[in-house]
Amino acid sequence: MKKINIALLGLGNVGRGVWTILKSNREEVMKRSGYEVNVSKILVRDIGKERGINVPKELLTTDFNDILKDDSIKIIIEVMGGMEPAREYMIKCMEKRKHIVTANKMLLATEGDELFKKADDMGLMFQYEASVAGGIPIIQGINESLTANKVEEMYGIINGTTNYILTKMELEGLNFEEALKGAQDMGYAEVDPTSDIEGYDAQYKLAILSSLAFGTKVDVNSVYREGITSVKSIDIKYAKEFGKVIKLLAIVKDRNGKVEMRVHPTMIPKNHPLANVYDSFNSILIKGNAVGDLMFYGRGAGELPTGSAVVSDMITILKNDVNSENYNHVVKNNLWDKKFRDIRGVESKYYIRIRVLDMPGVLGEVTSIFGEYDISLGAVIQKISKKSEKEVDLVLVTHTCREAQIINTIDDIYELKSVKKIKSIMRIEDFE
Amino acid sequence: MKKINIALLGLGNVGRGVWTILKSNREEVMKRSGYEVNVSKILVRDIGKERGINVPKELLTTDFNDILKDDSIKIIIEVMGGMEPAREYMIKCMEKRKHIVTANKMLLATEGDELFKKADDMGLMFQYEASVAGGIPIIQGINESLTANKVEEMYGIINGTTNYILTKMELEGLNFEEALKGAQDMGYAEVDPTSDIEGYDAQYKLAILSSLAFGTKVDVNSVYREGITSVKSIDIKYAKEFGKVIKLLAIVKDRNGKVEMRVHPTMIPKNHPLANVYDSFNSILIKGNAVGDLMFYGRGAGELPTGSAVVSDMITILKNDVNSENYNHVVKNNLWDKKFRDIRGVESKYYIRIRVLDMPGVLGEVTSIFGEYDISLGAVIQKISKKSEKEVDLVLVTHTCREAQIINTIDDIYELKSVKKIKSIMRIEDFE
Ligand SMILES: NC(=O)c1ccc[n+]([C@@H]2O[C@H](COP(=O)([O-])OP(=O)(O)OC[C@H]3O[C@@H](n4cnc5c(N)ncnc54)[C@H](OP(=O)(O)O)[C@@H]3O)[C@@H](O)[C@H]2O)c1
Ligand SMILES: NC(=O)c1ccc[n+]([C@@H]2O[C@H](COP(=O)([O-])OP(=O)(O)OC[C@H]3O[C@@H](n4cnc5c(N)ncnc54)[C@H](OP(=O)(O)O)[C@@H]3O)[C@@H](O)[C@H]2O)c1
Repeated sequence: MKKINIALLGLGNVGRGVWTILKSNREEVMKRSGYEVNVSKILVRDIGKERGINVPKELLTTDFNDILKDDSIKIIIEVMGGMEPAREYMIKCMEKRKHIVTANKMLLATEGDELFKKADDMGLMFQYEASVAGGIPIIQGINESLTANKVEEMYGIINGTTNYILTKMELEGLNFEEALKGAQDMGYAEVDPTSDIEGYDAQYKLAILSSLAFGTKVDVNSVYREGITSVKSIDIKYAKEFGKVIKLLAIVKDRNGKVEMRVHPTMIPKNHPLANVYDSFNSILIKGNAVGDLMFYGRGAGELPTGSAVVSDMITILKNDVNSENYNHVVKNNLWDKKFRDIRGVESKYYIRIRVLDMPGVLGEVTSIFGEYDISLGAVIQKISKKSEKEVDLVLVTHTCREAQIINTIDDIYELKSVKKIKSIMRIEDFE
Repeated sequence: MKKINIALLGLGNVGRGVWTILKSNREEVMKRSGYEVNVSKILVRDIGKERGINVPKELLTTDFNDILKDDSIKIIIEVMGGMEPAREYMIKCMEKRKHIVTANKMLLATEGDELFKKADDMGLMFQYEASVAGGIPIIQGINESLTANKVEEMYGIINGTTNYILTKMELEGLNFEEALKGAQDMGYAEVDPTSDIEGYDAQYKLAILSSLAFGTKVDVNSVYREGITSVKSIDIKYAKEFGKVIKLLAIVKDRNGKVEMRVHPTMIPKNHPLANVYDSFNSILIKGNAVGDLMFYGRGAGELPTGSAVVSDMITILKNDVNSENYNHVVKNNLWDKKFRDIRGVESKYYIRIRVLDMPGVLGEVTSIFGEYDISLGAVIQKISKKSEKEVDLVLVTHTCREAQIINTIDDIYELKSVKKIKSIMRIEDFE
């Protein structure tokens, strides 16, 4: 049996998962890769830390040079996260002809170019399945299995924490704060949950997926982003009345060569497969012009599912000839020059909830402004007010229009004396 | 731009799809593979046939030697189907150092060994994504993305025709014959539908998937098989009463190293993702010991979806170095020596519908036989008979027991004078 030495950068959640899988599925890894895999070194910050797994102390190091300078180490598993020094370490390792497996979505979404290029230049393999949707093989799917397609649309639930929160709100009637607290107690959400609940995490992942699907460079900032902090229980209830549920959706559409990319809470039909993705599960639906609708569903995070993707990536490297320089699997993000569409150019249906004074004529005033901007309405609900209430909710659902029209409409509506507040604006996706 | 010559064996449904994709997605194929792909020759039986697509006549040939002896042809796309001469042609092409893409499930399920071995010996790539579940990248999924896992269970809806028929029966109340007729009118079912409705097609596919997932040789005959011809509308109605639907499920379970493989109509909970896979869609759920639950969903057949898998396979070959001999991607089906479990050893819950004489004491007689064989019952329904009827249906649902127990029970029940007929026995899967 051939032997190979590898090193881990990081031994946190994902690192632990990788270690556990290498031990418990040792025989699988060995037979499928054709190699006996030996972890030579593991980089950490704190050697003394209690890690809850049985890793020989002598493997741990805080000195990156122990790994970099060891020529017997052929593959680097980067699971430390963050921008620096992760970026610098990977570049240096590639210069020493070490193949890379990484789970680092933030780094890939922002500085991926440099890393891909280095791998390509050096003839090395660079694998990053775990960076999007944890255990779901979506990178491999786009990169190897859908290559015969023009990708036309992509819809993803790619952040487990927010899907868990929205699930609790929908099924158990919790409000956002309660659901967030629950997610934190379950260990799904970080102490600082900003990256998840404000949609940054999904934004990174969508940038990576788009870049792959369209073979083009994607500036992460051209992905429009809204988080779920403004999703109210009452909107979930109204959604239900329209036969819809609310999900944080990452959406990409190629409309005649113009690509729109956006992450925001979205109302989708209850009977759509994505509507039934609950808890911390992830799911991604891709429409290709040859394959049609294709959906992937599974665990988007967690030690073992993420570790599964990392270890499978490592096996893929081993199944190629580790000493060859003929890899052609590194993402090419310079195949097409795509134009991106600003959020104002996006077409969608909209759900709008407005707090108005409960007096005659208000409905007419509001709806006539929609008319002025050529927006037709699909439904209007006015909640019958209790005698004591002076304000009521007006809920409107539009037909398809451009976001710019909505923005103008809302501006004008705000001018109305009878309008107290625009409580909610949410895009609706019917997948048509 | 590098150039490559390929040849097609066959220009039927899948061949047409491949041709169409190579034309319409020419730029995608070129940029992603790095090659300008030229179809040099296409083998058919009848050159004069009207094919509904615009293929230059001079590409067509009925002489296999035109392809075999052309050393400029590096990749063969086998989409002719059948056992011979497909097998012989692929072997001969590999001897001439041509890489293979095939969609031929029947051949792979029965004679796959010889083909895989030849590819391995010759250092060639042998791709067959389209052979199972059309456009769904399940082969790649198991073969490359789940390699870090022990596969514990697999559940698949992998035959589109039968799923279409069962959908029509469930949602539109058609009986089997009406639904089959509809499937034939839609072009989903062949004039001779035996392979689909008797479960042979699913049996082939399951044999291929099991062999991959467990890295072991699988005799297709060790996959237990029942088709859907015995599924009655009344059973679908009863299923509904229990919150269940009926699907033709391909099931694999590894129980402590003993593998059971079976294809049969199965009652599954209505709220399970697989229960909501409708029409001719396919879906496969895999449980890996690291990744957890992972599901794939998409089009399991059709010109373009199947062509998508074939063309993507070809691109994968091109992304490797076509002149290298260092591929390690051919399935290894000699990694493990698995034991297989006979259907009698399978554990399941069962739904049983018995036609009995409507007289006192029958229910007690029947249920006491279940007791004798240590089978506990979860539910019993006796349909209140109309005055005029002398016979009634008795519906029983068991707790988990061994198939052998059920077989013995049924034998004894048949002995009862009051029992006219066992109308239906169906396995129930709760995914627990
Ligand atoms: N968690 C998931 O489910 C998941 C899913 C998909 C992708 N990812 C990605 O995987 C990566 C790792 O995530 P994680 O959750 O495992 O992170 P984590 O639990 O915070 O672990 C990070 C590890 O890296 C080490 N480390 C960090 N900075 C270091 C430095 N400068 N020098 C040396 N060691 C350093 C830490 O050492 P100490 O232990 O000594 O502090 C720790 O072991 C991230 O890029 C994340 O986005 C995570
Ligand atoms: N159809 C699907 O959706 C689908 C999905 C997945 C996998 N597959 C698999 O793909 C393969 C092809 O299926 P298909 O539906 O495309 O079959 P098909 O429509 O029957 O086409 C078969 C083609 O092969 C040619 N051919 C057959 N025997 C030949 C021989 N002895 N010599 C020369 N040419 C021969 C035929 O030539 P003529 O045209 O001159 O008769 C025809 O063009 C099968 O293995 C099938 O199981 C099909």
